[in-house]
Amino acid sequence: MQIVAPYLLFIGDATDELSIKMARGVADWRPELCIGEMKVEGCTVSTGLASTSIEEAAKQGAKTFVLGFANSGGILAEKWHPYIIKALEFGMDVVSGLHDKLTDVAELVEVANIHNRQLLDIRHPEGGFKTGTGAKRSGQRLLTVGTDCSVGKMYTSLSLEKSMKAKGLNVDFRATGQCGILIAGQGLAIDCIIADFISGATETLSPDNQDDHWDIIEGQGSLSHPAFAGVSTGLLHGSQPDAIVVCHALNRHHMRGLPHTSIPSIADTIALNLQAAKLTNPNVQLAGITVNTSSVSVEQGRIYCQGIAKEFGIPCVDPVRDGTDAIIDYLLHNQQIAGVVS
Amino acid sequence: MQIVAPYLLFIGDATDELSIKMARGVADWRPELCIGEMKVEGCTVSTGLASTSIEEAAKQGAKTFVLGFANSGGILAEKWHPYIIKALEFGMDVVSGLHDKLTDVAELVEVANIHNRQLLDIRHPEGGFKTGTGAKRSGQRLLTVGTDCSVGKMYTSLSLEKSMKAKGLNVDFRATGQCGILIAGQGLAIDCIIADFISGATETLSPDNQDDHWDIIEGQGSLSHPAFAGVSTGLLHGSQPDAIVVCHALNRHHMRGLPHTSIPSIADTIALNLQAAKLTNPNVQLAGITVNTSSVSVEQGRIYCQGIAKEFGIPCVDPVRDGTDAIIDYLLHNQQIAGVVS
Repeated sequence: MQIVAPYLLFIGDATDELSIKMARGVADWRPELCIGEMKVEGCTVSTGLASTSIEEAAKQGAKTFVLGFANSGGILAEKWHPYIIKALEFGMDVVSGLHDKLTDVAELVEVANIHNRQLLDIRHPEGGFKTGTGAKRSGQRLLTVGTDCSVGKMYTSLSLEKSMKAKGLNVDFRATGQCGILIAGQGLAIDCIIADFISGATETLSPDNQDDHWDIIEGQGSLSHPAFAGVSTGLLHGSQPDAIVVCHALNRHHMRGLPHTSIPSIADTIALNLQAAKLTNPNVQLAGITVNTSSVSVEQGRIYCQGIAKEFGIPCVDPVRDGTDAIIDYLLHNQQIAGVVS
Repeated sequence: MQIVAPYLLFIGDATDELSIKMARGVADWRPELCIGEMKVEGCTVSTGLASTSIEEAAKQGAKTFVLGFANSGGILAEKWHPYIIKALEFGMDVVSGLHDKLTDVAELVEVANIHNRQLLDIRHPEGGFKTGTGAKRSGQRLLTVGTDCSVGKMYTSLSLEKSMKAKGLNVDFRATGQCGILIAGQGLAIDCIIADFISGATETLSPDNQDDHWDIIEGQGSLSHPAFAGVSTGLLHGSQPDAIVVCHALNRHHMRGLPHTSIPSIADTIALNLQAAKLTNPNVQLAGITVNTSSVSVEQGRIYCQGIAKEFGIPCVDPVRDGTDAIIDYLLHNQQIAGVVS
């Protein structure tokens, strides 16, 4: 599967910032992949990109119409069919991250066939996976892990990729969630895989590579989240990371969606992830900590990160406010000492 | 989903003992649910039950025709369609644990509809699950966990259920694999669930119950297996066990299917499972250890188990050779001391 840019981001009649998270992620990280956004009457939010129409976007070369909104239940409402059909008629593929499949709607399949376009349901990965083996692959891998869900694992991963690229390193971002997949143009929605194949599918996501190549793998969930630790475990084992970066959100008081739970400490999160990661890579190391400090001032955020850095003797940054160069410098310095990179 | 007994176990033209594991499991544990087995020319193995035909089994009241064989790839060969159709015509439901779905074959669906019978694909659980919450449920739960796959978690679970029943306790066996589902007549093939819902689906498997009720939940995989630890983690968290029993196979030298791996120690397996289980049940305790000692003599097996029992200060038995009364006695004694059961 390859999603072809540039995209037209369709945000429908969304009124909730969170519901257009997928569109906003692409707009934030890959504005150059986007022609613009398209909304309909009633929409009160925006990705920040210029508003345009299907006709206008097609003229400007849009190749893919992205359903960039979500709703509880992941329903594909019938009222969106005419827009999807129009985009197909104007020569675009259509991408959906909804639970309902585009390919289950006969009318859409028919129009897509007529125009020789693709309907891409990125929450429904194609089958054909094998179970994991844990066998060592060549190349190097970094996985972001978290104290909780939604603490900035994707943003941290993208920032790490950007830092590595700026230093001229050979690096790929490997997407495991819908928004990441749009940003990368490819990837695997790991929480949508059949449970038997979580680690096996993850193994295919970062195949053998050159010795100096890095895969930056987008983490999901948390080993301490009662709903999602299974996904996080399989992703960790299949990624066989050489390095992990622990991601945290300041002032989070319980696990996402579960008011009766408590957030694990950063120290426990480091220990738990290193312990589990050793099953498939005994040489795994902690490369840094990132914190989403958006709930406090920039200065307060920096003071918090400095405290964490001192406590753990490792770089700690807010990836959005400060970038992640410090983590990459530390990682490469450690590798030089260890003689991994000459 | 409820599978209706009695069953006719169809083992086709199998020539490999392992390929009829599902049929044999039911024949071993629930012979009273089975009318007999049915084979075709070329079959060289047996469940030990009397051989019969579809006509004869129907006369004796068979309600379900079970495809009791497996093959690599889980393919439903066309040559079996006539047997399935005949069973439907003789008034039986049909159960399959193959990867290929009965309900994907139009001809079978048509015949099933005509005769108002069910096609049950137990490796394809119905959807509609929610993500896990980790919220405490009433009643008591015991989960079997393993050093590896295929070390006797189902046999241990069934033996524990039998011991509890013999002591007059209020107990249910909760099946999480295909064979277990046939034995229980219901359950959930947990490794076939979408990854996002492993723990959520597990939570539905052992719902709120009376305070003195026990669910004995069949474990899957191992927290130390590079392919399946994700499933085991979600199953552990969703089960929120009050007690775990660690299962092991003597003279296993590497993780099942992975010659480059090593088997974790029993001590590490206990520690890892208790640590992970505490996320959703801080009061979890180890209730015993079971060992498949079939690779050595009965006497050698007992000596091994006695050594393990002494080392860990907890009952250790071979569930097939010696039963699991010792574990249930220990569990109940501990509970009396703790005042859980008066």
